[in-house]
Amino acid sequence: MPHHWERFEKLVKRIHTLGSVSSVLGWDQETQMPTKGATARGEHSALIAGIAHEAVTSTEMADCIAALGDTDDLSDAQQTILRETAREHDRAAKVPQSLVEELSRVRVLATEAWRVAREGDDFAHFAPHLTRIVSLKCDEADHVGYASHRYDALLDEYEPGATCASVTAMFAPFRGEARALLDAVLSSAATPPTSILRRSLSVDAQRAFCREAAADLGFDFDAGRLDVSAHPFCSGFHPRDVRLTTRYDENDPLSSLFGTLHETGHGLYEQGLPPEHAFTPMGAAVSLGVHESQSRLWENLVGRSRPFWSRYLPKLRTCYGGQFDDVSLDDMLYAANAVTPSLIRVEADELTYNFHILLRFELEAALIAGDVPIGDLPDVWRQGMATYVGIAPENDADGVLQDVHWSHGLFGYFPTYTLGNLYAAQLFAAMRRDVDDVDGHIANGEFGAILDWLRTRIHGHGMRYGAAELIKRATDEAPTAEYLIAYLREKLTPLYDL
Amino acid sequence: MPHHWERFEKLVKRIHTLGSVSSVLGWDQETQMPTKGATARGEHSALIAGIAHEAVTSTEMADCIAALGDTDDLSDAQQTILRETAREHDRAAKVPQSLVEELSRVRVLATEAWRVAREGDDFAHFAPHLTRIVSLKCDEADHVGYASHRYDALLDEYEPGATCASVTAMFAPFRGEARALLDAVLSSAATPPTSILRRSLSVDAQRAFCREAAADLGFDFDAGRLDVSAHPFCSGFHPRDVRLTTRYDENDPLSSLFGTLHETGHGLYEQGLPPEHAFTPMGAAVSLGVHESQSRLWENLVGRSRPFWSRYLPKLRTCYGGQFDDVSLDDMLYAANAVTPSLIRVEADELTYNFHILLRFELEAALIAGDVPIGDLPDVWRQGMATYVGIAPENDADGVLQDVHWSHGLFGYFPTYTLGNLYAAQLFAAMRRDVDDVDGHIANGEFGAILDWLRTRIHGHGMRYGAAELIKRATDEAPTAEYLIAYLREKLTPLYDL
Repeated sequence: MPHHWERFEKLVKRIHTLGSVSSVLGWDQETQMPTKGATARGEHSALIAGIAHEAVTSTEMADCIAALGDTDDLSDAQQTILRETAREHDRAAKVPQSLVEELSRVRVLATEAWRVAREGDDFAHFAPHLTRIVSLKCDEADHVGYASHRYDALLDEYEPGATCASVTAMFAPFRGEARALLDAVLSSAATPPTSILRRSLSVDAQRAFCREAAADLGFDFDAGRLDVSAHPFCSGFHPRDVRLTTRYDENDPLSSLFGTLHETGHGLYEQGLPPEHAFTPMGAAVSLGVHESQSRLWENLVGRSRPFWSRYLPKLRTCYGGQFDDVSLDDMLYAANAVTPSLIRVEADELTYNFHILLRFELEAALIAGDVPIGDLPDVWRQGMATYVGIAPENDADGVLQDVHWSHGLFGYFPTYTLGNLYAAQLFAAMRRDVDDVDGHIANGEFGAILDWLRTRIHGHGMRYGAAELIKRATDEAPTAEYLIAYLREKLTPLYDL
Repeated sequence: MPHHWERFEKLVKRIHTLGSVSSVLGWDQETQMPTKGATARGEHSALIAGIAHEAVTSTEMADCIAALGDTDDLSDAQQTILRETAREHDRAAKVPQSLVEELSRVRVLATEAWRVAREGDDFAHFAPHLTRIVSLKCDEADHVGYASHRYDALLDEYEPGATCASVTAMFAPFRGEARALLDAVLSSAATPPTSILRRSLSVDAQRAFCREAAADLGFDFDAGRLDVSAHPFCSGFHPRDVRLTTRYDENDPLSSLFGTLHETGHGLYEQGLPPEHAFTPMGAAVSLGVHESQSRLWENLVGRSRPFWSRYLPKLRTCYGGQFDDVSLDDMLYAANAVTPSLIRVEADELTYNFHILLRFELEAALIAGDVPIGDLPDVWRQGMATYVGIAPENDADGVLQDVHWSHGLFGYFPTYTLGNLYAAQLFAAMRRDVDDVDGHIANGEFGAILDWLRTRIHGHGMRYGAAELIKRATDEAPTAEYLIAYLREKLTPLYDL
C-alpha cells in the first residue's frame, strides 16, 4: 500500500499542480496579458490541460485507484483524496477524448457566435451553436451516466451530490413564500433612495477603500492580490497565493466595494484551505455552491448589514473627502438593500436574483431533457421573466442572450449561485447561535470570530465532506431555503413597511 | 519522413510551449506574486521544468531525431529545428538526472548562502557552497564533453559555438587598445558633470517617459507590457507577448530610462522573432550574446548618442515640468557617457564594464580548470580589479560576492555581456553603411529604418545561423572587438580631450 499511495499521491499532486498552473495562466490572461497574446495563451492553456487530462485518465492512475480501493488502512484524509480523485478519474475516463475535443472546438465557435448574437440582438445567429452544444452536453451526460435525470450528470460536475430533484426541492419556496415576499415588496409604496449611491468618485480612492475593506475582513495581502478585470473573479493558486479582481466605475462607487467583498469571501475560503493538503482534493473547495456561500455571506449577510454600515459609512465619508456626509445610515442601508426587478441577472438584488436563477435552472434542465425546442427559448424566457421577476425583456440581448454560460457549455452551473445564497443564510444563522454578539463584532470592524467560525466549519475541511453533509455538520440541519427567506423577510419588512 | 516530422514537431512545440509557460510563471513571480506564494511557485516551476525535461530526453525524441537524421528532404527551417533540438537533446541526455537534481538542490542552498555571505561580507560562509557548485559544474562539463577546455562545455550553453579560445581572442584588445583608451581617459583632467543627473523626479512621470520611449523605438504595447521588478529583465513568451520590466528610483531618473531602453532592445528582438515558427528553435533567439547585442545597441549606441538626446532632451524638459531646463545638450551627453571606474559591475559605464567582464571570464575559466583555489578568490579578485579597472574593493561584498551568477551555477554566462557589446558596435557600424543618415533618423525620432535593418539581419532568422555566422552575414565580417573600441574612442575623445 505505501508504495501505491506514494505513486498515487504524486499523480494527484501533478494533476492539481497543473490545475494551479492553468489558474496562473488564466489570471494573467484576464488581468495582465496584452491583447495580441491570446493565441499563444491558447496554446499554453491547451497544452497544460491536455497533460493534466492524460494524468487523470492514465492507466497508472487507474491501477493506483484499483489497488488502493482494496486497502482498508487509509487515513480519513487519504480516503477523501482517493474518493474525489476516483470520482474525477471515472468521469474523465467515461467521456471519450473525441467528445472532449469536439466540445472544446464547438465552445470556441459558440462563444464567438454568442458575442455576435448578443451585440446584434440576433438569437437566430446563436441558435445552431446552442443546439450543437446542448446535443454534445447530452452525449456527455449519457456517457457519465445518471440515476433519474440526465441533467444530474451535468450538475454533479459543479455541485457534487446535488440532483435535479434535490435542487427543485430546495428551490420550491421560490414558488411560495419567497414569491409572496417579492409580491409584497413590489406592491409596497416605499421607495428606496438608490440615487444617493450615484456619485462620481475617483478610482484611486475606490481602490484604497476596497483594499482596506478586504484586509479588514481578514484577507492576507502577503498571500494574495487585488487587481482589475472586466469580470471580477477570484482564483486561488494555493492557500498562500490567492488573486482577487474587481472593477471600478467612477459613477458607481459601491459596486466595486460589494464586488470586492464578494470576491474577498471567495478568497478567504481559498486562503483557509489546509495548506498541508495543497494540490490534493483535501486542500480544495467542496463545490461551487459552497464557494458561493462564502462570497455571498461576506457580501450580503455581513456587507449589507446595519452594523457593517455603522462602521463603514464614517470610513466612506473620510475616504471620499466628505462626499457621503449627506447620506444617513438609514438611507445607506435602504439603498444597499433595495429590491428592484431588473432584466439582467448580474445587476439583480439579493431577492430577485434567485428568481433569475430559478428561470435558468428550469430552462436548462428542460433543454437537456429535450423538453424545450431551442427556437422557443426567447419566448419561453420572456414568459418566465414576466412570471418570476415581473418584467420581461423587449429584446433577446437583455433576455436569453445575456449570459455567457451556455455558450461555454456550462449547464448545471447556474443553480450553484442560489445554492450559495441558501447555504450562506443558513451558515450565518448557525454562526449567530455559536458566536456571541456577531453584530457587535461587525460594528467594531472585528471579523476574526466570524472568520474563525468559517475556518473551522467550512474552509479547513477541504473536500472531506460533500456540500450537503458539510452544511449539515456546520448548521445541524440539511440545506434549506428557509433561512434565506427568513433573513430577507426580516431585513425587508422594515424597509418596505411590510 | 512526414510522419516522423509530425511527431517530432509536436514534441518540439510541447517543449518550447512548456518553456514559455515557465516564463509566464517566472514573470509573475518577479512582478506580481505575493511573498508567501513562493513555495507554491516552486512546485509549479519544478513540475513544468520536469515535464519539459522528460520530453527533451524521451526515447520518442531520440527515435525521431535518429529517423530524421537519415532523411535529406528537410527544408532549411526544418534542418534548423532538427539541429538545435538534437543539440539540446544530446546535452540533456548526456547529463545524468541525478546530477541535474543535485545541482538544483545545491543551487537553492548556495543562493541562500550567497545572500547571507554578501550581507555579512563573509566569503568564508559562501566558499564551501561555491566549491560544491564548481565541482558539480565540472562534472556536468565532463559529461557534456569538450574539445580543448572544460569551460567550453559550459560556455556552449549560453553562446553556442563560442569557446574559451575564441572568447580569449575576441577579448584580447582589452589588454591592449582598450586598456590604453581607459588609461588615457583616467589621466584626463576633464570632469563629466554627472551631478546634473541627480535630481528628484516622480515615479509616475518616469513611467510615462519610459513607456513613450519604448513605444517610439517600436515596441508594440498590444503585444507586450512594461512593469516593475527588483532586477529589470525581458521575458518573451511569444513574439506577440513580450514582458519588459524596469525599476524607478526617484533620485536617479535616467537609470529607469536607460534600463528601459536596454530591455526594450531585448523586447524588440523577441517581438521580431518569426511568429510562424513560434515554439520552435526557428522562432527562438540565437544566443545570450546576440540577445545582449540588441539591448546594448538601443541602450548605448542609440540611447547615449547626440542625435538621440537632441530629440529627447526637449522631451525630458517637458515631461519633467522644466526640471531639465538648466541642462545643455553637451552636458547631458557628457553625463550620459561619463567613464567612472566603479567597484560594482551593474553600475559600470560602457568602457569599464568590459573590464569587469574580462576579470570574471578569466576567473571562472580558471575555477573550472582548477587553476585557482576557491579560498584565493577574494585576493585574486582584488588584484584583478586593481589591474583592470584601477580600483579595488575593501570588502568582499563589493568584490567577489557582488554577483548572484555563480551561486546559481551560471558559469560561461558573464562573457556574453561583452560579446553583446562587441556585436552591437559591429552591427551598428554595418547598419551605418547600409542605411542612409542613421543619425538623422534618430534625431527625428524615426527608428523604423534601424529596426527594419535589425529585423532583416538578426531577428527574423531565429536560430537558423549560429551567433558568429549571423554576425558575419549581417556585417560581412567575423565578430571582433575592433568596432566597439573604435566607437568608444570616437565618442570619448572629444569628451575627455584625448
